[in-house]
Amino acid sequence: MAPLRSWLDINSRSHFSLHNIPFGIISTAANPEPHAAVAIGDQALDLRVFTQQNGFAALSIIQPHQAVFSQPTLNAFAALGRPMHRVIREYLQSILLAGGPFPDILEHNQTLRKTALIRLQDCKMHLPMQIGDYTDFYAGLHHAYNVGTLFRGPQNALQPNYKHLPVGYHGRASSVVVSGTPIRRPNGQILLDPTAEPKQPVLDASRKLDIELELGCFVCKPSALGEPVRIHDAPEHLFGVVLMNDWSARDIQAWEYVPLGPFNSKNFGTSISPWVVLMDALEPFASTGMRNDAQTLPYLDEKDRNSHYPIDLSVSLTTASGNTSTLARTSAKNLLFSFPQMLAHHSIGGCPFNVGDLLGSGTISGESKAEKGCLLEQTENGKVDIELEGGEKRRFLEDGDTVTMTGVCGGEEGAFVGFGECSGRIEPAIELDFA
Amino acid sequence: MAPLRSWLDINSRSHFSLHNIPFGIISTAANPEPHAAVAIGDQALDLRVFTQQNGFAALSIIQPHQAVFSQPTLNAFAALGRPMHRVIREYLQSILLAGGPFPDILEHNQTLRKTALIRLQDCKMHLPMQIGDYTDFYAGLHHAYNVGTLFRGPQNALQPNYKHLPVGYHGRASSVVVSGTPIRRPNGQILLDPTAEPKQPVLDASRKLDIELELGCFVCKPSALGEPVRIHDAPEHLFGVVLMNDWSARDIQAWEYVPLGPFNSKNFGTSISPWVVLMDALEPFASTGMRNDAQTLPYLDEKDRNSHYPIDLSVSLTTASGNTSTLARTSAKNLLFSFPQMLAHHSIGGCPFNVGDLLGSGTISGESKAEKGCLLEQTENGKVDIELEGGEKRRFLEDGDTVTMTGVCGGEEGAFVGFGECSGRIEPAIELDFA
Repeated sequence: MAPLRSWLDINSRSHFSLHNIPFGIISTAANPEPHAAVAIGDQALDLRVFTQQNGFAALSIIQPHQAVFSQPTLNAFAALGRPMHRVIREYLQSILLAGGPFPDILEHNQTLRKTALIRLQDCKMHLPMQIGDYTDFYAGLHHAYNVGTLFRGPQNALQPNYKHLPVGYHGRASSVVVSGTPIRRPNGQILLDPTAEPKQPVLDASRKLDIELELGCFVCKPSALGEPVRIHDAPEHLFGVVLMNDWSARDIQAWEYVPLGPFNSKNFGTSISPWVVLMDALEPFASTGMRNDAQTLPYLDEKDRNSHYPIDLSVSLTTASGNTSTLARTSAKNLLFSFPQMLAHHSIGGCPFNVGDLLGSGTISGESKAEKGCLLEQTENGKVDIELEGGEKRRFLEDGDTVTMTGVCGGEEGAFVGFGECSGRIEPAIELDFA
Repeated sequence: MAPLRSWLDINSRSHFSLHNIPFGIISTAANPEPHAAVAIGDQALDLRVFTQQNGFAALSIIQPHQAVFSQPTLNAFAALGRPMHRVIREYLQSILLAGGPFPDILEHNQTLRKTALIRLQDCKMHLPMQIGDYTDFYAGLHHAYNVGTLFRGPQNALQPNYKHLPVGYHGRASSVVVSGTPIRRPNGQILLDPTAEPKQPVLDASRKLDIELELGCFVCKPSALGEPVRIHDAPEHLFGVVLMNDWSARDIQAWEYVPLGPFNSKNFGTSISPWVVLMDALEPFASTGMRNDAQTLPYLDEKDRNSHYPIDLSVSLTTASGNTSTLARTSAKNLLFSFPQMLAHHSIGGCPFNVGDLLGSGTISGESKAEKGCLLEQTENGKVDIELEGGEKRRFLEDGDTVTMTGVCGGEEGAFVGFGECSGRIEPAIELDFA
């Protein structure tokens, strides 16, 4: 299929081609209240303005629901359900298509073009969803293997349950922030010398501040307490995907995590990209996942459905001195479980879901060193330097470092379905005084 | 101090004496939309009706805020802050006090009495708060010791971090339900024979369904990302306390919990009592906690403040055949860390809080068998029978069992500050068919 062409001038390398149409929450000088938009090329189509000026005139089915685009989150839009997402996204594509059926709506409507099309650089981005509960999985097989090898050796790297179920834990919804939000280095309890007895922690700023390269997926359909979401129904419960950086303090984690899992080592901030790429935009790239050599149970069997997306991912680090280095490139094909499998597992005991709940994939790493999605793996828990551009080195993050993740699907120019960026800059820890 | 006496007829054993005035969310036949009330004796004072009929006439400070009592949760009331909670609670006490200063407001106002005072048995209770994030701690020292002894022996019962920080994990906010909500036995992955290799789980209904006797505490003051709540400020962030039953599936837990902690074994339901006992009502009972023989860090030091409450707790089980047996009696004095310590620790790295966030204490057990707050401890993980009234036995919960928790402060008749009940009945698991 040739790339769809818009009457708008869209760079052929843009993540936001006409094939994408991701949804986000913006505010602008003219409309300072956060509201919905879609990204197209290097512009946003302001859906509040578009709605107010009758942009949906040719799509009567949306008329009763237009208020969703004036909301400060995408939850109400998400709650309309996947069939409606599909209709609205395709309508917006048709409006933006060169030679499309409705040129009078926007293309030939200079007033609407002037007010509804806004340069992305003039948009302030907000958290796209009000997140009810946030769950983080651990489905990156190579990541789990690499981390397990570091702490338990290659023979026992993967726990016995690992391939049977998508291992996950409940995260902290309140700590999820939109890309661009500064991340303050956390203070916490750290055991400086793990071999000394008795073990006496100190309170200090984390010295092992790390990233985790992940995908996040939002839920768009509620499910009740006691009612599992069957795996064949799960795709209809999924709204769209974002990039996610699950910032982690490895020294705080090492001391706190036994026996109940990560806690303060994770809840000081998790960044997500601002544009939600709808499941429909990813559908053309759907593929089978990794082969799972465990005998997984039937409730996790997707049968012939493909729910993995080979999204090309990359992470770069820009130091305070301005040098940018690529830390890793890998692919989302390295996830052992898909989002439908995660949801089917998460709900099998009856856990209820709300619109806006977020599922994190877990850190995504490939097999080679250049594909490792966190510094813990890359530096073998701080034992090996990473050489950066400009001669700098890192084992973990330093204050002033900016980490930027990107992700994109599709090899064809003019038809990319990408996520834009997920970035965050490290600020120094608060100085604590408990004299 | 002699007990405060109301002009209402209140049973001297009531949990809801004039010393208490707990807040909850009710709906009634006359007012089917959930809204706020306080419990007094065996009645609720409907605060929506009270407000509409000018019950706060003698408290001008509340006039701009009266709409909070018509909300379907207590979040807006909680967000008014502790000084306002104090004023409103004391005003309601004065309205209900025999010989109080404002007899015309309610005591002598037969119209208002008829519409605003409703028998508790005619009130439907709702979840009192919209919960943003729910965190469950593990601060019951004897519980942690007993469980650790079961799995690792008495020498290694407590992990090295246990006394240095309130160990906790993020729970599932969406699964918190109000007392009386039926709890469906969860299905999940279970390893029937943990010694067989290779380890192959089955999907089945939990055979080790358990309770956890806990307290929950709600947050009433937000805190921003990156901003710790200092321990001396923490009490102003706490709204009130409820009973909590953190239902747990021990067989699902045993298989899933390594390395990221409990997940589906907990997120199928957590019950809380409907009436939130305000911190001010508990304040007269404030006492020092257990001695912590670890050298805890200064950010956890409450100095001279007492933030523990020796709440007498009990758990009973009523079988399907109607026999009721007491399972345990213990006291909240068995918590090693207080709620202010939990909040100070939880936020030390910068984790943000919203009004309505919930902190669970962890299972509360005493030292003796009769004081053990979960069946895992009582039956040594299913090895020992519990003898019930009527000749029945239990190792874990059976379908049709109803578990009821109660809690009360104060030994003096007519002055009890209690929590009422937190109860739930076990329903059979969903039958799954994945042929």
